[in-house]
Amino acid sequence: MSSIALETVLPVSEALLGYADCLDQDRLEDWPQCFVPEGVYRVVSRENEVLGLPAPIVYLYSRAMMMDRVTAIRDALTFEPVYTRHVMGMPRVWQSEAGLRSETSFSVYQTTQEGRTRLYAVGQYQDLLEENPLGGLLFRERRVVLDTFAVYNLMALPL
Amino acid sequence: MSSIALETVLPVSEALLGYADCLDQDRLEDWPQCFVPEGVYRVVSRENEVLGLPAPIVYLYSRAMMMDRVTAIRDALTFEPVYTRHVMGMPRVWQSEAGLRSETSFSVYQTTQEGRTRLYAVGQYQDLLEENPLGGLLFRERRVVLDTFAVYNLMALPL
Amino acid sequence: MSSIALETVLPVSEALLGYADCLDQDRLEDWPQCFVPEGVYRVVSRENEVLGLPAPIVYLYSRAMMMDRVTAIRDALTFEPVYTRHVMGMPRVWQSEAGLRSETSFSVYQTTQEGRTRLYAVGQYQDLLEENPLGGLLFRERRVVLDTFAVYNLMALPL
Repeated sequence: MSSIALETVLPVSEALLGYADCLDQDRLEDWPQCFVPEGVYRVVSRENEVLGLPAPIVYLYSRAMMMDRVTAIRDALTFEPVYTRHVMGMPRVWQSEAGLRSETSFSVYQTTQEGRTRLYAVGQYQDLLEENPLGGLLFRERRVVLDTFAVYNLMALPL
Repeated sequence: MSSIALETVLPVSEALLGYADCLDQDRLEDWPQCFVPEGVYRVVSRENEVLGLPAPIVYLYSRAMMMDRVTAIRDALTFEPVYTRHVMGMPRVWQSEAGLRSETSFSVYQTTQEGRTRLYAVGQYQDLLEENPLGGLLFRERRVVLDTFAVYNLMALPL
Repeated sequence: MSSIALETVLPVSEALLGYADCLDQDRLEDWPQCFVPEGVYRVVSRENEVLGLPAPIVYLYSRAMMMDRVTAIRDALTFEPVYTRHVMGMPRVWQSEAGLRSETSFSVYQTTQEGRTRLYAVGQYQDLLEENPLGGLLFRERRVVLDTFAVYNLMALPL
């Protein structure tokens, strides 16, 4: 893990915060736009990660698939709507052969309409990012290593 | 949201951390000093925020009003003293016409004298900052969007 | 608390994240290597901190002592293995006479093999860091001010 220029950490941080904002503000339709068109979104349980088992819980490998997922959520949402809130730590950023990588611990909270908040999930984002020709960074791959999986509507919403 | 110079994010981060430190270290008397003299402190529920309803839960619009609030807390505190701890994510910072703005997710914990910790509240700070002639930044406006409101002593203490 | 150059905050952040990664990835054997050889690791309860009582809960004052602690943990671990996850706020960094200092709020989560996550502890790191001749920063002193202490296996693992 080679050291990284300061100028690189801020754009990574902005990409992370922009992604979280799409989810927290219920702008799900903007979520696929955080990725490159052929971007990969994967959720794996920490248990499988530690055991070296590759089977993902969720695996979407294009913006179009992500868009389908969003449509399905909008159409089929039967559970009580909740507000989500991401609280992330700082990213660990480095340059790999494949490109710019970062790892970031996260916690996600859900709050009911009655104002009751509970911890929803904790885990780590493992990201591969690349320059957006329009400015900023896009996700080429986001791998969500999920510690928590004993929660009832966990897979419905993107993390 | 235009991109922001790296030199601006660090002072914002220091202002955010300095504010949280006043509350976490029980230096409530220093809390109004984080604002400009005519500064505005507002707490709104996320529900009202989403519905576009403007009514704030708390609305203080000068340092003097904040100082009054602190005095009232010190005089009237009847609940068991607790320790608070803020854990904040990174700020999203940008330059608006009104000045320097930032948004920051936060979680606040409370711990009893017996060492039992519970999540107190999560939400987002929406801030407007300006230069302090003495160095650093001061809050011109702090808007606390509060996800959690089903907690019993929530409004007593500044967030 | 004098202001700090931007170039200093990033290495501090990397040291903090590297330390947390040792613990979260169960690479306990690497944990002492985050310190200088004569480094000090101390855990104090927030209650004692506030009362000005110096008695630490844990006090290790060399890498060798830390290594002994790791061996004891590996040999004697009788409780159910759990995954840990640190979510830290941004560090507050400044230059003191003794050297580079930082303070950082943290939360630590534990997740069981069944995927159930609970908040383990919150508190604040109070650190004194120095240059590693091999690059990066090492901890000369890490003082863990622990809000939470009503948890059953708290002292077994480094924080």
